[in-house]
Amino acid sequence: MTTVLLVHEISLWRASLACLLSADRELLVEVTDKGGVREAAEEWSPDIFLTDLDCPDSVEVLAEVESLRCPDSGDGALVVLARGDRPGALRRAFDAGARGYIDKFGTAKGLPEIMRKVAGGGRHIDESLAFGLLQAADVPLSRRELGVLALAAEGESVSSIAGALHLTNGTVRNYLAAAIRKTGARNRLDAIRLSKQFGWL
Amino acid sequence: MTTVLLVHEISLWRASLACLLSADRELLVEVTDKGGVREAAEEWSPDIFLTDLDCPDSVEVLAEVESLRCPDSGDGALVVLARGDRPGALRRAFDAGARGYIDKFGTAKGLPEIMRKVAGGGRHIDESLAFGLLQAADVPLSRRELGVLALAAEGESVSSIAGALHLTNGTVRNYLAAAIRKTGARNRLDAIRLSKQFGWL
Repeated sequence: MTTVLLVHEISLWRASLACLLSADRELLVEVTDKGGVREAAEEWSPDIFLTDLDCPDSVEVLAEVESLRCPDSGDGALVVLARGDRPGALRRAFDAGARGYIDKFGTAKGLPEIMRKVAGGGRHIDESLAFGLLQAADVPLSRRELGVLALAAEGESVSSIAGALHLTNGTVRNYLAAAIRKTGARNRLDAIRLSKQFGWL
Repeated sequence: MTTVLLVHEISLWRASLACLLSADRELLVEVTDKGGVREAAEEWSPDIFLTDLDCPDSVEVLAEVESLRCPDSGDGALVVLARGDRPGALRRAFDAGARGYIDKFGTAKGLPEIMRKVAGGGRHIDESLAFGLLQAADVPLSRRELGVLALAAEGESVSSIAGALHLTNGTVRNYLAAAIRKTGARNRLDAIRLSKQFGWL
């Protein structure tokens, strides 16, 4: 059996995708939202963490999953649901060590095989995401800078970003300053605007 | 049998939700994206059109479904997937004649019963959406004004909005002018900004 922990903020999509995956009898699927990741991971030790880069809380989910995974073992591989036109999100996933990239606009066939392949130590990238991943390499912001900027774009304060990502306030301010410098922006809002314009956020 | 035509732009969610609904043996589910609605509706004459207000193209999908439904018969009822914090979207759905409102953040249980109830002429509103629907009554913009403004917010030109909603350029300009006046905005961008701020878009 391959165990999959699906993390999604929208309960309808959790239930629906779990239904689709569970049609394969060799997949065991559990679902949770961000708040339940730690408890579910400790209870289930999933082979795969499956999450959606389009969720507004995906920055925090990636940080939470990363803090739980044991990168040296083959356990707990990260697979992301993505779209090709958001290189910044693909970059965040890549830097967080994702080994599977599924295009939400692609065919849903073959998902169980992808889960098994990644759980077995392999990688999978939907062909339609390849160009987005290439572009991701050109995003000048680091994953941390992108993550901090993405939360700032949601209106979060420095201290709330620090809390969500387990960083100090000073570190968050440093990442924001670096993001402003690297984007050539005038200020924080300008950096958010430019990063959205380039598809990094 | 109750036939459901699920319209969604993301193929992964189409396949997943179809899987969930099809677990009920008395539901027949077909899926399509916006471009295939007319053909699928003509082929299947669905009892229910099911669509997601969060899709960027939901304005156009609602317009397309409305042009296909026969409001005097009981056929082709509209059910929407929604969230409680977007009264403008709920208002658009209400004005388009939606008879079912499902909270995507609620429990996915009971969906087949809701489909049958609405197909049989009934109504369904998830309790968690009730407040959003109350707020929707206070949105000063008409559904058409909201729809035009939502497409303008996506960066669409007047002529492309006109094409998408089967309106003339002049009518689109009139709706935009009304939206600016009613929101007390200085211009189109300001009207978009204010409407997003109030949760109408």
